[in-house]
Formats: sequence, C-alpha cells, structure tokens
Amino acid sequence: MTRIELYDTTLRDGMQGEGMSLSAQEKLRVAHRLDELGIDLIEAGFPSSNPKELELFGLLAGESFRHAQIAAFGMTRRRDTRADADPGLRVLADSSAPVCTIVGKSWGLHLEKVVKVDREENLRMISDSVAFLLAQGKRVIYDAEHFFDGFADDPGYAVRCVLAAAEAGAHTIALCDTNGGTLPNDIAATVGTIVAGLEPTGARIGIHCHDDAGCGVACTLAAVEQGALQVQGTMNGYGERCGNANLVTIIPNLQLKLGYECVTDEQLASLTPAAHFFDELLNFTPDPDQPYVGRNAFAHKGGMHVAGVTADPATFEHVDPDVVGNRRELLISELSGRGTVHARARDAGIALGDEQAAHLVDRVKELEHRGYHFEAADGSFELLLRKETGEYEPLFRLESWRAIVEKRADGRVETEATIKIWVDGERYVRTAEGNGPVNALDRALRDALAEIYPHLRDVDLVNFKVRILDEAKGTGAITRVLLDASDGDQVWGSIGVSENVIEASWEALVDSLEYGMRVAGRRAQDEAASTQSS
Amino acid sequence: MTRIELYDTTLRDGMQGEGMSLSAQEKLRVAHRLDELGIDLIEAGFPSSNPKELELFGLLAGESFRHAQIAAFGMTRRRDTRADADPGLRVLADSSAPVCTIVGKSWGLHLEKVVKVDREENLRMISDSVAFLLAQGKRVIYDAEHFFDGFADDPGYAVRCVLAAAEAGAHTIALCDTNGGTLPNDIAATVGTIVAGLEPTGARIGIHCHDDAGCGVACTLAAVEQGALQVQGTMNGYGERCGNANLVTIIPNLQLKLGYECVTDEQLASLTPAAHFFDELLNFTPDPDQPYVGRNAFAHKGGMHVAGVTADPATFEHVDPDVVGNRRELLISELSGRGTVHARARDAGIALGDEQAAHLVDRVKELEHRGYHFEAADGSFELLLRKETGEYEPLFRLESWRAIVEKRADGRVETEATIKIWVDGERYVRTAEGNGPVNALDRALRDALAEIYPHLRDVDLVNFKVRILDEAKGTGAITRVLLDASDGDQVWGSIGVSENVIEASWEALVDSLEYGMRVAGRRAQDEAASTQSS
Repeated sequence: MTRIELYDTTLRDGMQGEGMSLSAQEKLRVAHRLDELGIDLIEAGFPSSNPKELELFGLLAGESFRHAQIAAFGMTRRRDTRADADPGLRVLADSSAPVCTIVGKSWGLHLEKVVKVDREENLRMISDSVAFLLAQGKRVIYDAEHFFDGFADDPGYAVRCVLAAAEAGAHTIALCDTNGGTLPNDIAATVGTIVAGLEPTGARIGIHCHDDAGCGVACTLAAVEQGALQVQGTMNGYGERCGNANLVTIIPNLQLKLGYECVTDEQLASLTPAAHFFDELLNFTPDPDQPYVGRNAFAHKGGMHVAGVTADPATFEHVDPDVVGNRRELLISELSGRGTVHARARDAGIALGDEQAAHLVDRVKELEHRGYHFEAADGSFELLLRKETGEYEPLFRLESWRAIVEKRADGRVETEATIKIWVDGERYVRTAEGNGPVNALDRALRDALAEIYPHLRDVDLVNFKVRILDEAKGTGAITRVLLDASDGDQVWGSIGVSENVIEASWEALVDSLEYGMRVAGRRAQDEAASTQSS
Repeated sequence: MTRIELYDTTLRDGMQGEGMSLSAQEKLRVAHRLDELGIDLIEAGFPSSNPKELELFGLLAGESFRHAQIAAFGMTRRRDTRADADPGLRVLADSSAPVCTIVGKSWGLHLEKVVKVDREENLRMISDSVAFLLAQGKRVIYDAEHFFDGFADDPGYAVRCVLAAAEAGAHTIALCDTNGGTLPNDIAATVGTIVAGLEPTGARIGIHCHDDAGCGVACTLAAVEQGALQVQGTMNGYGERCGNANLVTIIPNLQLKLGYECVTDEQLASLTPAAHFFDELLNFTPDPDQPYVGRNAFAHKGGMHVAGVTADPATFEHVDPDVVGNRRELLISELSGRGTVHARARDAGIALGDEQAAHLVDRVKELEHRGYHFEAADGSFELLLRKETGEYEPLFRLESWRAIVEKRADGRVETEATIKIWVDGERYVRTAEGNGPVNALDRALRDALAEIYPHLRDVDLVNFKVRILDEAKGTGAITRVLLDASDGDQVWGSIGVSENVIEASWEALVDSLEYGMRVAGRRAQDEAASTQSS
C-alpha cells in the first residue's frame, strides 16, 4: 500500500481565510490535535512575515509531538541577493523547524507583472534557496506557486523551475494550483508529466490545491493517482477565497476508497470530533453537510432510506459512519448515545441505571434542540449527570442578580454587578465592579462564595466564547456561551444558553464554579486516599 | 460546441435537505428564476407523493416560461401491476408536465433487501413504465437509481436495466450516484461504457451526483467529458446528507473552462444574484466561500495579491468575476498596503491623497493591533476612510447610555437600556426594553434616531458575532463584536472592540447605523441621477 504524506497548512495558508484568528496558545492546541490525527507535517507559519509568527516557532520548540514534524514557510531569496544574506532564509535557517517549505515562481506572467524578476535569475533564486536551506540541515519542500497556470502557459519553463528545485536537492516538489481554477483532468495530465520528468532526480511530488472551481478534493485525488506522494491541504478546507483542499474529506477518500495509507484506523475514527474541534476553536459553526464528518452526512430522512439502512447499511451509506467517527441518524452530538452516557458516568464515578441513561439521552437531545452542545462543556455535562442521579447539590440558592453597564457623559464606561444569594440559610449580598458585566458578576459571586469555599479563589476563567445560534435574527437571537475554567491543574468547560447574553453567561459561570468545587472535592479525596495508602 | 442540457431538481431532490421549506408560491418563484437563469428542465416535484405536490403542478400549468420545461417525478410501476393501472404513473400521465422522470432500480442489493422485487420483473417494470408514459405523449427521462453501485456489483444486470429503459423509448437515461460515494475516475469509466453501449438505442445519457465524497461537481464534469449530455443537480448544492451536485458551480465550469454551451452570457452574469436569491428565499446565509458566487470567491488579502490583481487580474483570478456576476473584494488586513486603501477609496467615491493613504494604512495597522479586523467590516472601514478625509459627520453626539440586566427573585430576566444623545442641538432621552442589553440599546437608539432619519427603521441587524480576542484572560479579555446590517437591499458589516462586550457592541451598532445612512444617501443620489437622465 502506498503511503501518502499528509501536509497540513491550516496554521499558514488556512489563516488567510476570512475570520481566521488564533492566539499562539490556540495554535499550539491545533498543532497537537493535528499530531493526534496523524498528520505528518504541520506547516505552522511564516516566521519572517511578522514577530508573532516567529514567536510561535519559539513556543513550538518546547513542545513534543508523537509523530508530526513542524515545517516553517518562507520564500525563495530576493533577486540579486546571496541566499545566505537573505533575511527571510536566515529566519528559516535559524527556526526550530526541521522542515522548511519555500515558495517560488513558475509562471512568466507573475515574473513579468508582479515580482519583475528575470527568468534566469528566478531559476537561480530557486536553486540557491533550496541549496542554502539544505546546507543548514533542513529537509526542504519546494512549493511551485501557480504551477498549473505556468505549465499551461509555457511548459518548458515551468518544468525548468521545478527541475531547478529538484536538482538542488529539494526533498519534495509541491505543485500548487494557487488560483484554484484548474480542473481534475488537467491536474492529472500535468502531474503525470512532472512525476515522470522528475523521476531521475529522486524528488517526490506533492500537490497543493484550492477550491475555486469546487474541485479541490477531486484535483488532489487526481494528482495522487498520477503519483503525487504528498498532499497539502487544511482542516475543514479553511483558506482564502473558496478555501484550500479539504484534508478532512481527502483523508477518508484516499484511505477508504482508493486504498492509500494515511493514518491509523483509530486516528481515522477521530476525524469527526477533530474536525469539530477546529471549528469550535475558531468559533465557526461546523458545516452540517460536510462530507464524512457533517451532522447530516449520514442522516436519513425518507422512511424507505431508514428501512433500507436497517436491512443493510450499504443500501444507503457509501461508508460506515463509525469508521470516520461519525454516526447515523440525526443525533446532534457525540454524547447523545446511551453508550457514551454510560462511559461518561463511569468516568465521573457515578452509577447510572439503564432507565436513567435513557432518560438522560432524551434530556440531552431536548437541550441540544434548544442550543446546548455538550461536546466542549464536560463540566456542565457532569452536573447534568448528577442532577439525573440525584447526586447534585447546588453551591447556593440564587435570589437575584443585576448587572449595570454605563457609558458616562465623560466617556468612561463603568460596570457594576450585584448578587443576592443564600448559602446554608444565610443571605449574602455582594456588589463588584468589572471590566464587563460577566466579569463583574463573576467577582461579586466569588466574593461571596470564596468565604465559604476558599478553593474557588484559585479558579480562573481561561476562555470565554459567545456564539449567536440563529444569526439571521440579529441581536434578538439565541446566545450560547462556552466558558473554560481552570484551577491551574485541570481545565473544564461549561455552557449557558439564553436569549440574553448576560443570562447565558451567568448560567455558564455558575456551572463552572459548581464543577470547580467537585474538582476540588475529588482531589481532596484522592490526596486523602494516597496519604492513607502510603 | 456541444450543448449540455441543465436539469434542476432543487424543487424535488433538493427539498430533501435539512431546513428546506418552501410554499407553493415560493416554488413558483424558484421555477421562474431557474427559467431566467437558462435552466432547461425544472423537476418541480413528485406529484403522487402528496396532495400539495400535486397542487403545485396545477399552479404550474397556469404559468408560462420563456425557455424551461417542467418535469414531474415518479417511480416505475409497482410489481405485478399493469402500468396503466398504476396510480403513481396515472398521476404523472395526467399531470400538466410535458416531461416525466421516473426512477427505477439497477442494484441487486436493493431489489433483494429493500423492495423485494425479482430481477426480471424489475426489467419489465422499467420498460412498461417508460412505454406507458411515452404513449401518453410525455418525454420520458429514466433515472437509474444507485446505478454506479449496481454497475460495480453486477455490470451485466445494471446495463440490462438501462437498456430496458432505452429500448422502451426513454429520451434520456440519467445515471444516478444515489449514495454519492463514487469518485470521478469510476464515474468516468462507467459513463464511458454506458454511452458507448446505449449508442445504438439513440438514448442520451444524463448524470445525477451527490456530494458525499466532496466530488459531486468533479463527478458531473467527468461524466460530461465521457459523453453525458444532461446534467442533474440543484441550486447551491441543496439536498439531503451532503447535498446534490451544485449546478451553480457546474455551469461556469462547463461553460468557461470546458467549452460546453449551457446558458447565454447574460444568464451566466446573473449567476451570483440568482444563487443569493435562492438562499434568501430559503432563509439560508449564503456560503461566503462558495466557488464563483461567494462573497469571498474573488477576495484578495495580501498586499502582493492586490498589487498583482491591479497589474493583471489573471495573476490571481481564475476567471473574471464579472462573467458570473460577482465582484472582486479587496480585504483590509494587517497584510495589506496602500494599494488596497486607494482601491477601496475609489469604490466609495472618495478622493484620497498619497499622504492620507499612508496615514490611513498606519491607522488601520494600529487599530488591527488593538483587535480591529476590517475584512468583514466594510461599513466601519468606509467610515474610517471618511474620518481620514474629513468627510465624516456623526449622526448624533452621545451624552451617555446605560444598560441594566436583572435576574429577579421570581426568576425572570429583565433588560432595559437608556440612551441620552444630542442631534442638531436637541437632546433625546429614550429608554427601551430588549431581550438582551444590545437589543435594548439598539431599540432605544433607533427610537430616537428614526424620528429624524426614518430610513433607519428599515435597517435590520442580520448577524451578530462576538469573539474574545485574548482568551487566556477569560472574561477580562478584549471583546470584538462584528455586526452585519441590511436594509433589504444591501448588507454591510461593522465592528466594535472593547474590554467590555456592551461597549464593543455599542460601537459596532453606531457604525452600522451611520453607514446605513450613507447607503440610503447614495441610493437617493443614484435614483435622482437616473430620473434626470431618463
């Protein structure tokens, strides 16, 4: 079985997409999730483009990955400059990444109209840059930008460009359909020619497509069938214009339908949750119709479909949804099945009867219908479990709260919140200021609770996400708030849903503190147990 | 030039998609818009499936179309029934549609496990049904369901099924990849075989694909390149699971890239507004990344892209956006330079000096550093441009505002906002309730402003997104609010950034109303100009 190398450029080319925004810490989380998914090469950024990207490579140097290698992206040297004097190549050489990918030109139109570089000098720029990075001990991947347009325009020159890279020692030559308009048959013909032509150099061919003609996946498959051994793309097809080739679709197509080897069966079975993880992190709504991983990808509507699938899933399903971690029928999340519910109860040390499990599944479905989504809210889910088994005890009883945000005549914004709660028969009234209404409510609530539960002083809210669920309704829509909290040791998620953003935030806040108390309680038990046994 | 017949099944197969819902009147509007777009055959429904669908054909009989013909969908006769005694075929025969499409089986698995029909009887069902409708004066299209799976399983029997339809006189045999999992090369090989095999019968071959492997468009193109002359699909790829083959992508691919004839140049230039029309009618947000017609399909970000497109659009565009009725978008971002700013100023009709442009680029960079992000906030960006050139006039002067959200002891949540503003030396104080603080502020502000600017009553906030920028800080982080507003005719984006989510929302709200006034002003000017010139 031929092994296809998976090259993910979500963190570089994918970040060109509209609305793509990730902090350095989030980029590290993406890299680890890509590693777990079995991606071979993670193009983490363009370190010479700005200081933030450079910083990221510093952080990455301290991370360890099971399988993936980190690639740094850059460009061929400037014209009329020595490669070792080129600042961009220097940054690549000095970066922590063992793999460097450099992009260069193959299309006369670009040489003439955009970069204004002589054709022969372009060839030298390519070979010098590859040779320089190679001498610095890097594995070099050469991205031949606009290769298919260049080849259509002047095949002889386009081939000379990639030969220059290959002969200088580039390990892989990725042929890029940068403008995304080439159709699969043309991709296949060109890739076939280049695979044959570059064979004597020993360089491998890669493919980098975009989806401007709606054929990014098919073009990638066509290239692989012609001998390309590396596939470049992004998670969920993120990227500028119509997006990059979607690795989430390409991987199962290659592995399940064309017999290539990409990832392990376990990794393939994590494809759906991984795809949703990236969307959640980027605050995008997962595309329900996305091939393989979409909520609707294995949804059956007509009665005949349902009967057919019951008789034999192959009648109406092109692959088994389990294989890609997805599921049949219109269940909204991973947690909606009884098996998952049982597994989660066991994890939390809760004994759950079959009837309770069935009831909880119904309750989750009902809540998900109202906009809840427990995949990223493990804390709220465990509290729900405890409510089902009667093991839940609230931290406090709410009387009321109030948040006021005021923009004063002098331009200052002031925020103040008051809470009135009861704990053990005693009434607590607290007021706090904050830099926003949720922050003020959090401070007021914790001011009261921490007197009784000092552990809550150690809980930090580390992440706060707001999504409007029915966006067509503007500010009158349902708001979903996801909150991540941490006590420095463990991170947990909670969720709140309401028409009112403040009410939704309050709900998530309370869950996050209540679950925080459980975390503390469990740790205290564990510590007591380990003291006894030692 | 070979003409490809366009067969749209939005109103039948497309309606199986999640969230698809149209009244009979809306279906008529869809049919007319499809006709205007140059669609040849409109499959309007399955009249024997329910009375509403039957009614629709009654309504369609009273409509006249420039070019399109209406097709009615049904199934082959029941087993062991005479075709003329089959109620479903009777409905088709009696319907107003001149074209009837009937679907039948070609896959043993389905005959055995789903419909439990003998193989020979299935062949008779196909030929009897085709012959009956033909005798009723209909043009008959035969949809060979699960054809590619059937052909892979037992090519001999699958071919006998389509031969039965062709020999009985079916005008077109549409080969259906019903489960959507076949890849383009297999589609091509099978279609090639069938085109050659059915040639003596005179029947034409059609293709009907789904997007379960992300290759619906590519599979359709592959079939056409093998001689299929009819293409079935839906607008924007609507349909169950991952959707049907997307005609909005297929049409320009066939016509602009493969040299087939489908629609007139004028019709092609109406593709973008037509695609958005269908989404709006169905209350879907148009996919900004959709090939050819998406808002981002011709969006350029990096400074080098902008320079290239300015020098020669072919450098970074696979087709001219005008040809499909779309337009180039220059996104404002960290990476962008003076060229983009100049181009945007020209679009807005603002004369911008070089020094002003340079200053504005610095200002954009500074704002982006603070968390602003003008890509999706064209309204806020134009206001910024006007502030730079001194052409900006605020709608009002703010004195103060206040928002209060209160969770009362009885569990109810109440939200109230008060604004105090000055317009033309007069002070306005307004209070409004809302289902959240932003909604209440919006109502209070518009209550005051709409007295002076009645146009603002027509502005709707259609989209509201909140993102926490430095999430590591939890609720103390910077909040970015993106707001999309519309006056029913045009959509614009605005942005607000603040530590306080309410303050950020307020900022975006004010921009969105101020820009809304500019949109109204521009439209009034255009209307005045067109009145003068006519």
